[in-house]
Amino acid sequence: MKRVAPAVLPLIAVDRKSPTPLHRQIYNAYRAAIVGRTLRPGQALPSTRALASELGISRIPVLTAYEQLLAEGYFESRVGAGTSVSSSLPEQVPSRPSPGASQTRVDSGARPVAQRCSLLAPMQQAPWVHSWGPFGISQLALEHFPFQVWSKLMARHYRTPLLGALYYGDPMGMPDFRKAIATYLRTSRAVHCEAEQIMVVSGSQQALEISTRVLLDSGSPVWVEEPGYRFARDVLALAGCKLIPVPVDEEGLNVAAGIQRGRKARAAYVTPSHQYPLGVTMSASRRLQLLDWSQRAGAWIIEDDYDSEYRYGNMPIASLQGMDRNSRVIYIGTFSKVLFPSLRLGYIVVPQDLVTQFRTVRVALDLSPPQLHQAVLADFIRDGHFARHLRRMRQVYGERRRVLVETLRNELNCLQEVVGDGAGLHLTAMLKKGFSDRAISASASRQNLWAAPLSGAYLGEPTNQGLVLGFGSTRVEEIPRAVRKLQALCASV
Amino acid sequence: MKRVAPAVLPLIAVDRKSPTPLHRQIYNAYRAAIVGRTLRPGQALPSTRALASELGISRIPVLTAYEQLLAEGYFESRVGAGTSVSSSLPEQVPSRPSPGASQTRVDSGARPVAQRCSLLAPMQQAPWVHSWGPFGISQLALEHFPFQVWSKLMARHYRTPLLGALYYGDPMGMPDFRKAIATYLRTSRAVHCEAEQIMVVSGSQQALEISTRVLLDSGSPVWVEEPGYRFARDVLALAGCKLIPVPVDEEGLNVAAGIQRGRKARAAYVTPSHQYPLGVTMSASRRLQLLDWSQRAGAWIIEDDYDSEYRYGNMPIASLQGMDRNSRVIYIGTFSKVLFPSLRLGYIVVPQDLVTQFRTVRVALDLSPPQLHQAVLADFIRDGHFARHLRRMRQVYGERRRVLVETLRNELNCLQEVVGDGAGLHLTAMLKKGFSDRAISASASRQNLWAAPLSGAYLGEPTNQGLVLGFGSTRVEEIPRAVRKLQALCASV
Repeated sequence: MKRVAPAVLPLIAVDRKSPTPLHRQIYNAYRAAIVGRTLRPGQALPSTRALASELGISRIPVLTAYEQLLAEGYFESRVGAGTSVSSSLPEQVPSRPSPGASQTRVDSGARPVAQRCSLLAPMQQAPWVHSWGPFGISQLALEHFPFQVWSKLMARHYRTPLLGALYYGDPMGMPDFRKAIATYLRTSRAVHCEAEQIMVVSGSQQALEISTRVLLDSGSPVWVEEPGYRFARDVLALAGCKLIPVPVDEEGLNVAAGIQRGRKARAAYVTPSHQYPLGVTMSASRRLQLLDWSQRAGAWIIEDDYDSEYRYGNMPIASLQGMDRNSRVIYIGTFSKVLFPSLRLGYIVVPQDLVTQFRTVRVALDLSPPQLHQAVLADFIRDGHFARHLRRMRQVYGERRRVLVETLRNELNCLQEVVGDGAGLHLTAMLKKGFSDRAISASASRQNLWAAPLSGAYLGEPTNQGLVLGFGSTRVEEIPRAVRKLQALCASV
Repeated sequence: MKRVAPAVLPLIAVDRKSPTPLHRQIYNAYRAAIVGRTLRPGQALPSTRALASELGISRIPVLTAYEQLLAEGYFESRVGAGTSVSSSLPEQVPSRPSPGASQTRVDSGARPVAQRCSLLAPMQQAPWVHSWGPFGISQLALEHFPFQVWSKLMARHYRTPLLGALYYGDPMGMPDFRKAIATYLRTSRAVHCEAEQIMVVSGSQQALEISTRVLLDSGSPVWVEEPGYRFARDVLALAGCKLIPVPVDEEGLNVAAGIQRGRKARAAYVTPSHQYPLGVTMSASRRLQLLDWSQRAGAWIIEDDYDSEYRYGNMPIASLQGMDRNSRVIYIGTFSKVLFPSLRLGYIVVPQDLVTQFRTVRVALDLSPPQLHQAVLADFIRDGHFARHLRRMRQVYGERRRVLVETLRNELNCLQEVVGDGAGLHLTAMLKKGFSDRAISASASRQNLWAAPLSGAYLGEPTNQGLVLGFGSTRVEEIPRAVRKLQALCASV
């Protein structure tokens, strides 16, 4: 006989002292739940035996109630599939979902929400945000990910999980994983850090949120890059910070302009390795100016190093954090771009004197990070799979980027110049005068090309028009066709 | 031949135009990295071939540099293990970690942190918080978890992951999982909800954080239970809310006292199903009073239903949310107590008119939840394993609770009465006059008994002394011995 999956016991109470017989109480409770749409058509019901045992009564009244509900068409029963709520309900059941609908009757009384909610632009989900396909930003060559290796490491950890891996973990993250991250960052990014300074988070977004909550007050002035990363600005806005847009030029953030606009800012949010969205790398002299300002102003620098694992020139650039001699840099990074985004793993390198504060705030926000993927990734790094994957992907993406740049230069007539192609997984095609990036992006999205408009990345008036083009997920052989489609529609916009 | 795990490429730059020969540049870079402790003793180094290819130069200068570093003792090499940084470094390397240590030289300049950091009590990690063993709170009978079933479901999802499972997911959570949660909550907790109202979060803590950020401003007055859950108070304090402690009696939150102390509060945080820590269930009349007040005051109710899956009486209690006709209740729950905490999965049932705001704030905080465990748990629920697990665990915990209550009544002389044993995974042993719960807890923790002091759960002056005793992780046969140990030390405190 086919095993029937047990159903969750419905919330049914019986009162032995009531004058209403037990079978009638059970009938009434089920009927009310079905009419009230607490139980939905087709939903599995517990066996009479399970319900009787749960209610602590004999099975007979339960059987009587079930028979009546079956006879009246509230329940249906199929051999091997147990009893369920009827998928076609009898006529006397009102078709309007009555108590469920009361949830939407919210017209009465004050319903105040926090003022900060009005600080965020409503999530107008532009089609080029998170649609999968050509030019989509933050998209990866997932077909090259070593899932076989990953699966083996997964199995190692979930098949016979240790007690410690099931209970709440260390709020900072698993010690082995933090050690692996620290070694990687020292070696590959010249970050000065010990494992004790690493906090594991769900990605750059949470890293920024925690850093903001520890460091900044409502009203604190903060430098943000102009153009810059919208989701970073949202975190700062949500905390009530005053955003000071500081222009980015070919050397990165213009520190002198920042000092002019807000000498006393409490922090600067920067992406020095591969600026988002322009892709420029901050020059050494700008880095020194920025560190110098931060020390004199008593300000913090939040360095978001979101995709610099991939550099295509011969000159790797050390992190800003590695140049800092005053522990003013909070370094944040993510595995979303080097492995895959749904992992939700990233890290913060916390200055040593702030570790206690970061830890305390993190506990208040979400206690501790999930453990399984930390353990798997620690093995993945330790066993050398991470280094191998990075090396292979640098070649894959390097080739995609080369073909994209070449095709853009040859085929895209509205192209002024390509910028920001020295690192990462996206570049920006600056447009000639007269072209509107928003018009092109909107038109492209109707053909499933997800070119994001550069002008959307400005807090103030855009000074440039361009297309931010991801090349992570598009195969080399598909790139020319995508660029030609883009050219065709640019010509007609 | 043994395969050598590839090492992450160190951040080494060469300049072809420099008068310094290439091999000397490489030697200098490695020596500096080792002296500066960027590279640590024993750390694996890339092969000469990999480094030469990365730097885009011939292998000869790399070989020359490696030979010199080996000769001088910076590197060491073992057959089959490749080259690594020497585990015993030569004398000329200063033993003080110089540039790394600069991270701790933070004596100069202002280092302001957010004012909210001073609002949280420093994480004084009391030994009874999160130590594993007898009486530990929030601890489970993990030996009964169906890991074989879980493993199979895991394998189904991670072996051949779909593209959609690797990329960023829906900020609200996976649709199938939300549907499964909605069905479960309607059936088992009489929560009025549709799948669209479910937001997947990492647990009650994040649920509370997101709710607070959406609903409350700095300075907003909020009712909290007295005594109550400290980590919930921390979230509210971190958001700058003004906490109004409202006493809890045998009927739950004293609503009249709340109205007297803060009629115009913006919200109330309550645990009506199984109050933390006292374990009482809020009476029907108090529930109606609370809902009535919230509607008249335009206030929100945050209902934290953290462990009510386990009830040991015959009268299941519907959720407060299910009684609410004005959509004033934000219902939060977690899988930490029914499955295991390191899953980090919980949910919020959001009133329909607030879904957009919750979604927008969630994106700003951490984009979206990790996906693998959502998919696995959706299957676990759909295939009936969840219902079966709940049913079995209710018996396991019911038996542990019965034995604990019995033994406490027979053996613990300082016991005044047992309260809050009708549901959940903990109860409270109220102490006779003259006994200090903190003294007993401290003394017990030295014998690996993790009895938490009730007085620690008060915001103001404690009006009772008691021990909050978890019974989830202690086997029936071990309970009497643990209670006797407790009795012995109570007698000597």
